[in-house]
Amino acid sequence: MNFPSRLVEEAVAEVSKLPGIGKKTALRLVLHLLKQESYVTELLSGALLKARLNVRSCADCHCLSDEEKCTICINPRRDSQTLCVVEDTRDILAIENTGQYFGKYHVLGGVISPMERIGPDKLKIDSLLEKIEKNKDIREVILALSPTLEGDTTAFYITKKLRAYPLKISTIARGIPFGGELEYMDEITLGRSITTRTLFDPKED
Amino acid sequence: MNFPSRLVEEAVAEVSKLPGIGKKTALRLVLHLLKQESYVTELLSGALLKARLNVRSCADCHCLSDEEKCTICINPRRDSQTLCVVEDTRDILAIENTGQYFGKYHVLGGVISPMERIGPDKLKIDSLLEKIEKNKDIREVILALSPTLEGDTTAFYITKKLRAYPLKISTIARGIPFGGELEYMDEITLGRSITTRTLFDPKED
Repeated sequence: MNFPSRLVEEAVAEVSKLPGIGKKTALRLVLHLLKQESYVTELLSGALLKARLNVRSCADCHCLSDEEKCTICINPRRDSQTLCVVEDTRDILAIENTGQYFGKYHVLGGVISPMERIGPDKLKIDSLLEKIEKNKDIREVILALSPTLEGDTTAFYITKKLRAYPLKISTIARGIPFGGELEYMDEITLGRSITTRTLFDPKED
Repeated sequence: MNFPSRLVEEAVAEVSKLPGIGKKTALRLVLHLLKQESYVTELLSGALLKARLNVRSCADCHCLSDEEKCTICINPRRDSQTLCVVEDTRDILAIENTGQYFGKYHVLGGVISPMERIGPDKLKIDSLLEKIEKNKDIREVILALSPTLEGDTTAFYITKKLRAYPLKISTIARGIPFGGELEYMDEITLGRSITTRTLFDPKED
């Protein structure tokens, strides 16, 4: 780039290091900030720095947290008999947004993937087993992992490890998504949705 | 959003204020920064702040500049007989990237648009006339404005104002873009490219 301002060039270079942001988008964003009052940029960079320097992993569930333990772990109104195992913090957000789950979480930090050399030892599986060993309250473990080869492998691995405990182990339902059209659905999803069909009960709605 | 970390939530809120960045993209960017070493976030927010606080408008051509006058205006090797009039600093970048222009620039800061209540008085047209009045060196003014109704109106307005001076006034060529296919071109572009056809000279390539 041959920009009349070196400072703009440097800002564009930094912004375009973000994933999915090219040079042109970065330039558009930087020029936008230059047009705004300076407090806009101050708030933005302050919020990013504060998050980066203070956010850590919750000591209990390993999700992102401002304090040693996250707001969900210390919330006494959450059902501590149910534990939902997810891949990362983003999945917690998605599940929380549904408003359908009131238990606690456990973040694995990934899924088993031999291709990417991620074995069970690199995930928070040991701490999950430890938590279940210590905490006799837990009655049900919900495996909310992505329906991929890696997600399924991880689910199988955890299920095998948990067999020793008197627990109910469940997995989130797989099937046709809301609004999905049968004719465009892949065979595996459609086939599975037929074999794992549930009783139709209009009252449930 | 119901995120276990308030700081992440605040950072996402600030990032999603940027144009074209939604909540989900913002979250992806913030989580990316959290995974990186903290110096990445420090460099990013530092560069944004430094640009916002120090970048100003060049006193001469009104493009973005780190100093009172921009690097193009103070460059003695640029041809000061030619002045290219553009809408904003981004256009300078695009023209500089072609490597085909060696003169100076003048940034209008917009185009005349009665719909958006932007009259000639809101643009840097007076300072353009002043510059031409003072600077007898200038021989040619190139109008490099977008081929829109507003761009054309602005070009006409400036041309009328410049008639009093012994100047060559030109506009960038309009026609079929490189790689454009005739059959998909709109009639105005194609029609104009026929009426303003140029002599074919293979040596020019």
